[in-house]
Amino acid sequence: MRANNRQADELREVTFTRHYTCHAEGSVLVEFGRTRILCNASIEPKVPAFLKGKGKGWLTAEYGMLPRATHGRMRREAAQSKQAGRTVEIQRLIGRCLRAAVDLKLLAEKTIIMDCDVLQADGGTRTAAITGAYIALVDAVKTGMAKGMFTQDPIIGPIAAISVGVCEGTAVLDLDYAEDAIAETDMNLVMNGKGEYIEIQGTAEGQPFSAAQLERLLAIGSAGIARLIALQQEALST
Amino acid sequence: MRANNRQADELREVTFTRHYTCHAEGSVLVEFGRTRILCNASIEPKVPAFLKGKGKGWLTAEYGMLPRATHGRMRREAAQSKQAGRTVEIQRLIGRCLRAAVDLKLLAEKTIIMDCDVLQADGGTRTAAITGAYIALVDAVKTGMAKGMFTQDPIIGPIAAISVGVCEGTAVLDLDYAEDAIAETDMNLVMNGKGEYIEIQGTAEGQPFSAAQLERLLAIGSAGIARLIALQQEALST
Amino acid sequence: MRANNRQADELREVTFTRHYTCHAEGSVLVEFGRTRILCNASIEPKVPAFLKGKGKGWLTAEYGMLPRATHGRMRREAAQSKQAGRTVEIQRLIGRCLRAAVDLKLLAEKTIIMDCDVLQADGGTRTAAITGAYIALVDAVKTGMAKGMFTQDPIIGPIAAISVGVCEGTAVLDLDYAEDAIAETDMNLVMNGKGEYIEIQGTAEGQPFSAAQLERLLAIGSAGIARLIALQQEALST
Amino acid sequence: MRANNRQADELREVTFTRHYTCHAEGSVLVEFGRTRILCNASIEPKVPAFLKGKGKGWLTAEYGMLPRATHGRMRREAAQSKQAGRTVEIQRLIGRCLRAAVDLKLLAEKTIIMDCDVLQADGGTRTAAITGAYIALVDAVKTGMAKGMFTQDPIIGPIAAISVGVCEGTAVLDLDYAEDAIAETDMNLVMNGKGEYIEIQGTAEGQPFSAAQLERLLAIGSAGIARLIALQQEALST
Amino acid sequence: MRANNRQADELREVTFTRHYTCHAEGSVLVEFGRTRILCNASIEPKVPAFLKGKGKGWLTAEYGMLPRATHGRMRREAAQSKQAGRTVEIQRLIGRCLRAAVDLKLLAEKTIIMDCDVLQADGGTRTAAITGAYIALVDAVKTGMAKGMFTQDPIIGPIAAISVGVCEGTAVLDLDYAEDAIAETDMNLVMNGKGEYIEIQGTAEGQPFSAAQLERLLAIGSAGIARLIALQQEALST
Amino acid sequence: MRANNRQADELREVTFTRHYTCHAEGSVLVEFGRTRILCNASIEPKVPAFLKGKGKGWLTAEYGMLPRATHGRMRREAAQSKQAGRTVEIQRLIGRCLRAAVDLKLLAEKTIIMDCDVLQADGGTRTAAITGAYIALVDAVKTGMAKGMFTQDPIIGPIAAISVGVCEGTAVLDLDYAEDAIAETDMNLVMNGKGEYIEIQGTAEGQPFSAAQLERLLAIGSAGIARLIALQQEALST
Repeated sequence: MRANNRQADELREVTFTRHYTCHAEGSVLVEFGRTRILCNASIEPKVPAFLKGKGKGWLTAEYGMLPRATHGRMRREAAQSKQAGRTVEIQRLIGRCLRAAVDLKLLAEKTIIMDCDVLQADGGTRTAAITGAYIALVDAVKTGMAKGMFTQDPIIGPIAAISVGVCEGTAVLDLDYAEDAIAETDMNLVMNGKGEYIEIQGTAEGQPFSAAQLERLLAIGSAGIARLIALQQEALST
Repeated sequence: MRANNRQADELREVTFTRHYTCHAEGSVLVEFGRTRILCNASIEPKVPAFLKGKGKGWLTAEYGMLPRATHGRMRREAAQSKQAGRTVEIQRLIGRCLRAAVDLKLLAEKTIIMDCDVLQADGGTRTAAITGAYIALVDAVKTGMAKGMFTQDPIIGPIAAISVGVCEGTAVLDLDYAEDAIAETDMNLVMNGKGEYIEIQGTAEGQPFSAAQLERLLAIGSAGIARLIALQQEALST
Repeated sequence: MRANNRQADELREVTFTRHYTCHAEGSVLVEFGRTRILCNASIEPKVPAFLKGKGKGWLTAEYGMLPRATHGRMRREAAQSKQAGRTVEIQRLIGRCLRAAVDLKLLAEKTIIMDCDVLQADGGTRTAAITGAYIALVDAVKTGMAKGMFTQDPIIGPIAAISVGVCEGTAVLDLDYAEDAIAETDMNLVMNGKGEYIEIQGTAEGQPFSAAQLERLLAIGSAGIARLIALQQEALST
Repeated sequence: MRANNRQADELREVTFTRHYTCHAEGSVLVEFGRTRILCNASIEPKVPAFLKGKGKGWLTAEYGMLPRATHGRMRREAAQSKQAGRTVEIQRLIGRCLRAAVDLKLLAEKTIIMDCDVLQADGGTRTAAITGAYIALVDAVKTGMAKGMFTQDPIIGPIAAISVGVCEGTAVLDLDYAEDAIAETDMNLVMNGKGEYIEIQGTAEGQPFSAAQLERLLAIGSAGIARLIALQQEALST
Repeated sequence: MRANNRQADELREVTFTRHYTCHAEGSVLVEFGRTRILCNASIEPKVPAFLKGKGKGWLTAEYGMLPRATHGRMRREAAQSKQAGRTVEIQRLIGRCLRAAVDLKLLAEKTIIMDCDVLQADGGTRTAAITGAYIALVDAVKTGMAKGMFTQDPIIGPIAAISVGVCEGTAVLDLDYAEDAIAETDMNLVMNGKGEYIEIQGTAEGQPFSAAQLERLLAIGSAGIARLIALQQEALST
Repeated sequence: MRANNRQADELREVTFTRHYTCHAEGSVLVEFGRTRILCNASIEPKVPAFLKGKGKGWLTAEYGMLPRATHGRMRREAAQSKQAGRTVEIQRLIGRCLRAAVDLKLLAEKTIIMDCDVLQADGGTRTAAITGAYIALVDAVKTGMAKGMFTQDPIIGPIAAISVGVCEGTAVLDLDYAEDAIAETDMNLVMNGKGEYIEIQGTAEGQPFSAAQLERLLAIGSAGIARLIALQQEALST
C-alpha cells in the first residue's frame, strides 16, 4: 500500500504556483506531493561562444538543492567548491529536455537560463523540475515577447516528465523518496504533447528488468505524462 | 519620500513563517518587505575538530542567494566553484551573531548549522537573515530538547538585526534595495533584548559620516531592533 | 549507406586484447572499429567510508579521454582542474552498470576501480568501455582469487553495452562518430546475458521518437548485445 | 597592566619605513609594535571590466600573511588553493577604506593595487595595514604624477585606522595579540583627517557591549587616529 | 647484475611506433623496455596571448600518467582537480626541451601541443617522452607543411634524452623503476645531434655525488643519447 | 661589463640577518644583492602520513613571491587559487636540497617546514633561498634541541647554492635579473661543504652548451659555493 492510499498509476498532488518570485522573467513553484522546487527562467541577451553570430539562441539549466531540502543535511555545493556528479547530470538532463520544447532558431541570440532549486525534496526532483520549468519557460517567453526580445513565439509544444519504477515487483508511478529508496528499477521519462519520447533513462538499481516490465513502465509513465501536460495547460490558462 | 509612504524610522512589513519546510529541526521563512529568506537550522551530532572532546557545542552559518533572487541573474556560486567574498563575509557575520544568542557550553558536542538562503532579495538580506535565523534557532533547540539532545535550554536571549543608512542626508531605517544603492552610509546593527550591541558594521559608501550622524543612526536602529524583538516574541508565542 | 558497407544492424569489428598493460589486476584494450579504449581494473584493499565495517566491497569507475583521442584536440581535464559534466556522467554510468555484474557482498571489503581511458575515439566510447571493462573485471577477479583476496567468485554474469540510434529515419546499431553527429535519436543500452535490461538511456537529439521507433531500437540493440556477449565469452575462453 | 606599561589609551610604537622595496610605485613597511606589514602600491594601466570606458580609475587591495608571521605556523593560502574567509574580509575592508582617500575620477583609467603582506603579526594587522597603505598610496600617486599618469592629484586627504576593545571591562587602544585574544569586545575604526568615520566594525566576542562602552571606545579610538594621522604627515614630510 | 643481463651502459630495447593513433598530426608510441608512452603532437592555429601578433609560433607540452600505469594505482589527476608538482615539472621540461628542436620564428602563429601520456611506466618516463616526442614533432611538422601551415621547415635538428644514475656505486644508463628506486643519484640528460647539452638535471637522492662520478655519468649518458638519435633517424627514414 | 663592476666569477654582496622575525624557530633574511628573501623554519610535532610510526622526521619547503617583489606586479597565487608551475618546481627543489643537509632519522617524528618568501627579486631567488634556508635550519635545530625536541643534532653539514650562466659567450657567476634574462644557458648548482654535488640543473635557454662550457660553469660555480659556505659559517658563528 502506498502513502495516502495512492494507486500504483496515480500521481501525487501536483501544483504550479506561477510568478512565485518577482525578478525572474518566468518563476514557478512546482510541487509534486512534498517535493517543492522553485523554477526561475532568466533571459540573457547573449549566447555562449560556440553560437556567437549564428542568429540562434540557447537554453541551459542549473540545478541545486538547498542543504536542508533533504532528510539529513547535505553539504552546500558552493562551500565544497564543486558541484556533485549527480547535480551535473541532472542539470544537463533538464537543459537538454527543455531545448526540445523551443525552436532555438527563434531565440534570436538570447540565452534562457533555467534555475531549478529544490526547497524541499521527497523523490522525483528532476522530473518535477522539468515539468515545472516548462511553465516558467512559457512565462519567460511571454515576458520576452512583450519586451520585443523575440519576434516569433519559439515554443514548440509542451513537455513533461515523470518517474516510474518497480517496487517489490510492481510498476508504480511518481515515486516518493521512501519508494525510490527501495525500488529495484528506477526510470525517468520525458515526453511531449504528442506522446513522443524526448528522453528515457532507466536504471536497474537492484534487479535487471525484463522487456515485459519495461513495457508496463512505459505504459503507466506515458499516461502520467499525459495527465501532467493537461495540468500544465490548465495552470497556463489561468 | 520612501516607497509605500514609509517614515524614515519605519520598518517594512515583517513576517515570520515557522515550519516552512519539513525536514529541518527549525525552519523559518522571514520576509522584510520583498526580501524573502529561508532560514533552516540543522542539528548535527558532532563538533568541528578544534572543539572535539571539550564538552561544548558549536553554531555556524552558511548563506546563499538563489541566482535569480536579484534583479539581474547572478552566477551560481556552486557552478563558479567559489563563494564570493561578500557571501563569506555575510555567513561569518550570521554565525558570529547567533553564537551570541546561545550558551555553547550547553550544546553538548552538537553543531547547529544555520542555512540562510535568499529566495528573493530587496535589500537588507543579512539583517533579515539574522532576525529570522534566531526564530529557527529557537525552534531547533525545542526540537533538540524534545529529542533529549540537550539537557538544559542553551538559549541566552533574543537577538535581532537591522540596517540603517544615510540617504540624501537623512538617516533611514531598514533600507530597500533602491535606497541601499544610493545610500552615502550603510550600517548594520545587531543587538540583544537588553539593548546591548552584538555587532556594529558601518561603512561610508560615498561620504564619511559625522559623530552626529552616527548617533542618529544608532538611535533609530536600536528602536527598530526593539520592535523586531517584539515581533519575534509574538511569532514564537503562537 | 554506412561506412565499410555495414548493415543497419551490424556491429563494427570488435576486438579485445587482454593483458594489455602489465601492472593492473585486469587490463583490456577494447576496440569497436576505430574506437580504442584501455580498461584497467585495480583491486584496492579498502572500501569507501560509507561501507566501512559492513563486510561488503565496492566497484567504481573513472573515465578519461586523452586530449588527442578526438578529431580536434580537447583540453586536458587535469590541466583544467575539472572533469567535464560529460565525463562525470559517463563514469557514473560505467560504475553503476558494472556493479550489476558483481555480487558486492562477495568483494570482502575490497574496492575494484575500473579506469577506462580512451586512446582513440570514433563514437560509442561509453558502451565500448562497459563491454571491455567487463572482461577486465573478470580478469581482475581471477587475479584476486588467485591471491586469496576473495573466497568465492563474485561475478554474477556477463554484461555488455551498445549504442543504437535513428539516422535519417532508420534505426542503426553501433554508431560511429559521423553517424552519431547526425542522429536524431541516440540511445545506449546495457543488458545482461539473459537479455534483461541494466540501463536504458535514450535521448532525442533532434526529433522526438515514437513508440514504434523505440521498439525497433530495442530490437536491434538487444540482438547486438547478444553478439557482444558471445564475443566476450570467446575472448575469455582463450 | 599592559605590556611595556602602556596606558589604556596609548598607541604602541609606530614606525613607517618608506621605499622599503625597490620595484613598487609606493612601498612602506609599517610597524605597530611587533606587528610588521609590507604595503606595496602598484599602478596598472587598466581598470576592471565594470569600469571600462568610463574615464574613472579603481583601487583594490590584497592582504596576506606569511605562514610564519604568527605564533604557530598557518597554512599557506596559495598551497590551500583558497583564501580564507578572514583574508577576503580584510582585503575588502582595506580596499574600501582606501578608496575613500582618493578621487577615483582622477585616476584616469588606472588601477592602484595595494598589497598588504604581514611579515610578523602581533594584533591589529588590518588597521596597521590601512594606516601604512595610505602612505604607500601617497608615494605611488607621486610616482604616477611624475610619470604623467595622472594630471591632477587624486588624493582627497589622509585616513588612518586603529583597533580598540574592551579588556576585563576597560576600554583600551591598539590591542596587541595577547589583549585581542581575551577582549570581550573588538572594534576597528577607520577615520579621516576631519575626524569623520569611514568605517566602524565592532564585534562582541564575549559579552555584548553597552551604549556607554561604545561611547568610550569611539572616544579613545578617534584620539588615537588623530595621533596616527599626525605621524603619517610627519613621515610623508621627510 | 641488471635485469636481462644489461650492461651498465646499455639501453633497454627502444621502439618507436609512428602513426599510432589516427587523429593527431604526429602520433608516436615510444617504448623503452616496459615504459610505454603515447606522444601525440597537435597543431593549433593560434598562439598564447604573450605571442600574439609577433609572427612567431609556440610549442608546449602536457604530461599525464594513466592511473594504473604504475605498480600501484595512482589517483587520477583530473579527479583530484589538480596536477601534481611532479607532473607540472615534467611537462615544463618536455616543452622546454622540444622548443630547442624547432625554430619558433618559422612556426607562423601556430602552437604545437605535445601530449605525452604514459600507458605503462617502468622508469625513465620523462626521457622516453622527450625522445619519442621528437619523432611526433617531426611527423606533425611534415603534416603541417603538406597542408601549407608552414612555409619553411622549422626543425633545427634532433634531440633525445636519457636517464643515468649511480646505483650501488656504479654509474648506469637508462634505469628501470627498480634501479631508479635505489639509485643514490638520478640524472636526466637532454642533448642534440651535435653532442651539445640542452638540459642537465642531476639530483643526489641519497648520497652527494663527486666530480668524478659526474664525469662518468655524462660520458655514458652522451653515448646513450648518440645511440638514441641514431634510432630516431632510422625510425624516421622508414 | 657587469653592474657594479663585478668580475665574471664574483658574487654579489651577500648578507644573512638572523632572527629576522620573532615567532619562527629559525628566521633569516638572506640578501644576494637586491634579491631579498625571508626564510622561516618551523618545527611541527607530526609527520606526513607516509612516515607515520617510522620514527623518522621530514623536511619540506614552500616558496612564494610577494606580488610586487618583481619589476611588474605578478598576480597573487592565493587569489589565483593555484601555485604556478615555477613555484611548485622551486619549492620541491628547496625541500629536496635541504633534506640532504639533515639526517631525517634524527628528526624524531617532527617536520621542519621551510618557508622561503621573496620580498624583493633580482635574479637567483631559488639559490639564495637554499643558501639562506640552511642557516634558518641550523637555528631551528638549535631551538628544537634546546626544547628537547631532538636528542641528537640532525645536521649533516652545510649546503649552499648558486646560479651560473653563459651570457654573451662568457660564463658568469650569480646572475642578476638583467643577466638572467639574456643568458644563453642558465644553471643552478647545489653543493655541500666537501665540494660534492647535491643538485645540478642546467638549461639551454637559447643556445645548447658544449662540454667545455659546462666544465667552466661547474668550476666557477663550485668556487662560488665554497665562498658562500664560508659566509654561512661566519654568520652562524656570531
